[in-house]
Amino acid sequence: MEATTARDLSGRLDLCCINTATLGHREPIARVAQRVAAAGFTWITPWRQEIDERRPERDAEALRAAGLQVSGYCRTTALAHDTAAQRQQAIDDNRRALDVAAVLGARQLIAVVGGLADSSRDIDGCRLHILRGLEALMPTIEATGVRVSLEPLHPFYAADRSVLNTIAQARTWCETLDPLGRHFGIAIDAYHVWWDPALVSSIDDAGALIGAFHVCDWLRHTHEPLLDRGMMGDGVIDLKALRALVEHAGYTGLVEVEIFSRDHWWREDPDVVLRTCRERLQTAC
Amino acid sequence: MEATTARDLSGRLDLCCINTATLGHREPIARVAQRVAAAGFTWITPWRQEIDERRPERDAEALRAAGLQVSGYCRTTALAHDTAAQRQQAIDDNRRALDVAAVLGARQLIAVVGGLADSSRDIDGCRLHILRGLEALMPTIEATGVRVSLEPLHPFYAADRSVLNTIAQARTWCETLDPLGRHFGIAIDAYHVWWDPALVSSIDDAGALIGAFHVCDWLRHTHEPLLDRGMMGDGVIDLKALRALVEHAGYTGLVEVEIFSRDHWWREDPDVVLRTCRERLQTAC
Repeated sequence: MEATTARDLSGRLDLCCINTATLGHREPIARVAQRVAAAGFTWITPWRQEIDERRPERDAEALRAAGLQVSGYCRTTALAHDTAAQRQQAIDDNRRALDVAAVLGARQLIAVVGGLADSSRDIDGCRLHILRGLEALMPTIEATGVRVSLEPLHPFYAADRSVLNTIAQARTWCETLDPLGRHFGIAIDAYHVWWDPALVSSIDDAGALIGAFHVCDWLRHTHEPLLDRGMMGDGVIDLKALRALVEHAGYTGLVEVEIFSRDHWWREDPDVVLRTCRERLQTAC
Repeated sequence: MEATTARDLSGRLDLCCINTATLGHREPIARVAQRVAAAGFTWITPWRQEIDERRPERDAEALRAAGLQVSGYCRTTALAHDTAAQRQQAIDDNRRALDVAAVLGARQLIAVVGGLADSSRDIDGCRLHILRGLEALMPTIEATGVRVSLEPLHPFYAADRSVLNTIAQARTWCETLDPLGRHFGIAIDAYHVWWDPALVSSIDDAGALIGAFHVCDWLRHTHEPLLDRGMMGDGVIDLKALRALVEHAGYTGLVEVEIFSRDHWWREDPDVVLRTCRERLQTAC
């Protein structure tokens, strides 16, 4: 990777964000928000299952009362399905997510686009269905002013979680959906992209489209591809070099911690998790 | 994927090959060879742990006696290591593999290049070490006449098994190592590459460099990223379309079955496995 330098995060928790998945969704969002704020953070990214989407105002108020701003809202539901009715249902559901994101004051909805339709072996066909589904969100995106950040997931998830798998592919999708770059961006998660042989050029090409940067770590002998992610510094990703690439490409946004760790961090005291995140953001990222 | 047509494999077991990993390395190579031949195959790709590398002539004779020809030999050992002494040891080991491949009459040595060095977070640095290691094999490659087929592995393995992860990257490496394309080629395994958004163009660009084509299937809800591969037809890969792409790019070689399946096919009667491979090669590939 290039030897450019990233921003100094020491004492800059205002540049950092906690994605609530890091705490394992064990407590109500109001309690999570209090903990996140008490640990010194001012930004949060909640998940849909934590929010009462029929009456999101109350949860929005709880976040504000804790002194937090909302960076992103996680996340879209899968868009490739076998039938047109199922695809329409997914579009409607994602429109609701955009509406709720707006109520929360979120800057962006994180898009995890989904894997293959249930009975499909046609990955390119599913990708086209998903593009059409994203396109159908445009009126709601314009009405709400919430940007959609397409998150390429690790190729391990291509079958069942996301057929969007590289930064270069996300850039192509953004350019297809939104040539002016106003409504769609890219969420880069270190865990999903660190292996990419085209990492340097694809980050550079993504440039101003980069709308979010997520960190955790890839454990060298990870035993499980979904819920065994590591704390920053405990794995093999050169996070400082990766962040330098992203910032060299023009990214000035938040560094967001998102760790899925069923057997380790999700069993740990949430305040210990947050203290560890705070320390590692300043030393290992 | 493109709608070009692949060769018709019906009744063409002469175009097919059995990689012995498919049978789980449960029996001596002579017995495996007899079973493979009895199932109607004439090509085999054995693994190093099955061959007595100090006296490979006897195993070579066993394969010939069964009426089999050797397509590939699996596989190189990891080339990125923390110390120069370890790296040299790996080079020496891979030279021995080339010598043994020559004795077996194998057309190619399959190269799985290894993951990150034990204490490294520098994936690009490791890639450079590996390129130098492969370069150091050149005199032995020339002496033996055994071609090396670089096999990009699924990005899931980047930390611990292979930092070579896409067909495009393998092509760049081939061109770097061997501009005339005489000694290095690419082994394409459906399991490792099926998700790649750049699949069509990278296969097309690889063209005459494609030296091997391996098939199995990606199970939709695979629970384990190493030993849970599926029989062709049981998963989500459009193998016919993928083979059409490879053949459209100029590949006229064998279609080789390689299935790592600890909990299913490795527990099945080897003759049943081989009969299933024979059928699926003609119907699902």
